[in-house]
Amino acid sequence: MSGERINLAHGDGGELAHRLIQDVFVKAFGHEREAQQDAAIFDSPGTKLALTTDSFVIQPLFFPGGSIGKLAVAGTVNDLAVSGAVPLFLTASFIIEEGFRLTDLKQIVADMATEASNANVKIVAGDTKVVERGSADGLFINTAGVGRVIETTSTPVQEGDSVIVSGSIGDHGMAVLAARGELGLEMDLDSDCACLHAPIEALLNEIDGVKVMRDPTRGGLATTLVEICESEDLEIQLEEEAIPVRREVHGACDLLGFDPLYLANEGKVVMIVAEEVEEDVLQLLKKYKETEESKVIGRVTATTNGRILLETALGSRRMLRRLAGMQFPRIC
Amino acid sequence: MSGERINLAHGDGGELAHRLIQDVFVKAFGHEREAQQDAAIFDSPGTKLALTTDSFVIQPLFFPGGSIGKLAVAGTVNDLAVSGAVPLFLTASFIIEEGFRLTDLKQIVADMATEASNANVKIVAGDTKVVERGSADGLFINTAGVGRVIETTSTPVQEGDSVIVSGSIGDHGMAVLAARGELGLEMDLDSDCACLHAPIEALLNEIDGVKVMRDPTRGGLATTLVEICESEDLEIQLEEEAIPVRREVHGACDLLGFDPLYLANEGKVVMIVAEEVEEDVLQLLKKYKETEESKVIGRVTATTNGRILLETALGSRRMLRRLAGMQFPRIC
Repeated sequence: MSGERINLAHGDGGELAHRLIQDVFVKAFGHEREAQQDAAIFDSPGTKLALTTDSFVIQPLFFPGGSIGKLAVAGTVNDLAVSGAVPLFLTASFIIEEGFRLTDLKQIVADMATEASNANVKIVAGDTKVVERGSADGLFINTAGVGRVIETTSTPVQEGDSVIVSGSIGDHGMAVLAARGELGLEMDLDSDCACLHAPIEALLNEIDGVKVMRDPTRGGLATTLVEICESEDLEIQLEEEAIPVRREVHGACDLLGFDPLYLANEGKVVMIVAEEVEEDVLQLLKKYKETEESKVIGRVTATTNGRILLETALGSRRMLRRLAGMQFPRIC
Repeated sequence: MSGERINLAHGDGGELAHRLIQDVFVKAFGHEREAQQDAAIFDSPGTKLALTTDSFVIQPLFFPGGSIGKLAVAGTVNDLAVSGAVPLFLTASFIIEEGFRLTDLKQIVADMATEASNANVKIVAGDTKVVERGSADGLFINTAGVGRVIETTSTPVQEGDSVIVSGSIGDHGMAVLAARGELGLEMDLDSDCACLHAPIEALLNEIDGVKVMRDPTRGGLATTLVEICESEDLEIQLEEEAIPVRREVHGACDLLGFDPLYLANEGKVVMIVAEEVEEDVLQLLKKYKETEESKVIGRVTATTNGRILLETALGSRRMLRRLAGMQFPRIC
């Protein structure tokens, strides 16, 4: 059994594809009926909805702290959550290379089912394609997600607002790079891959004054903040010393010449909140394991200029830009 | 310009990725604002919704009658339509092999935009990943879709109900196989790739008695009907002579030993309707170009047995099974 592998007939819509769906996907995701249908049908969960999609091409498929399966669920759950929505329904689509081990597929699908259950989302529709050996690299997964938008009163960002990050940055990027063996470093570091729906939902329901939320994935904290500053036309000043970075990540970055500000995160949120609720926000976030290390790392210094400045430990200031040039392919 | 190619930095979330999104996707799909966000937000379009997903790995990317872009929109639109929903919102996610030509990507994205406009759906969220040369085969696209379910009165299938197919079968499968040059045949045949939302929406709004709808894609008409018969526990009898097959498809099947019943379709629907509305259904379908060749091809002969029988031209009967064994990889 453990030697069983996916072949092209698992993707042709016929008998073997039918069995794969029944034995692997229906068993794990538990949607007996929908699996046979072309679409899942459900009652609309609210008046405003959010819709998102992500494809995952991470290498390696299993890494410290997670797998492509866990990541594919958490990534889409988090995209919905930071958009102010309660994640509810996911789709899952698999592109599998011929010869892929069935045991690995089952493990990855089990990881998806576990993470979906943790996040209270249902995987309601799916698809499987198989391509010839050499036409893909093992496995790619796409998830799309639908959520119910939590109605909140929106207030514009203003000077003095606080920038909060929910914990240490760069863990995912560095853990995955280390797992590839490309760094020549042995590290005891897990990816931060996790679903953030619970603290974010609590925050939106309990506290007014959360103005912007984003998950700093590809491109890292710096790129995400550049995008926020440009699209909202804000000037933000970050304090380098306030930004939480694990010792292992710091050390490896120093050795290798990486900047943790540009490393990917898969279980972090960065937000802009009104200064007067800063303490309430931190108190709430610290109740949840995923966000217990939340910290204020900077402040909105103007509602113009569209730029982000980093005040370094030495007191100098530099402007941050988007990640430029190929640094870390296939990190998610 | 025409020699410009995708490189890994187009997928890393940084500056080049930002430009690719702005220059290619935002320009074609026209969602200025959402492109910067983690999810698209929209008012819930109805009380019951449908959600579906499909990944497309078709080879070649351009084929007579369409491209992977047209197919990626039509495929998901049709999955929603045959589920009884009006297709409204799509997501589009791209996995691109390093070195892919930018002009090809732009053409494919333009095809998606055209087809989405034809089908009255909006592409509201997206994602782009780039993998190293050799880790994918050119381009894979995933689309997920949300639709508003049309409320209809559902009546159970019963003996005597009519089985209707909306036109000739096997065109897509044969056109794509021929385009690969694998058959050693030159054929003047287009894929049937098309959106069927318009005739299906009209049907559901105007006629009571449409009981089952499916699009016979991978695995062909036979596999789709086997799935219907098994899941609904029906016995269907098809008349081989009544099933529309183009002369070119028939000829090539005869030469190559293929069965058109197992060839993929990408612009056809098969349905079970009450016998008393059969004429009304055909009349309505014939008003639309995509379904103008609709025909009754068989009948429900029992609401038990879970099997499908084919009455051949010679008067013999055989039971149809799912497509078994690898026949046509990467047909969609």
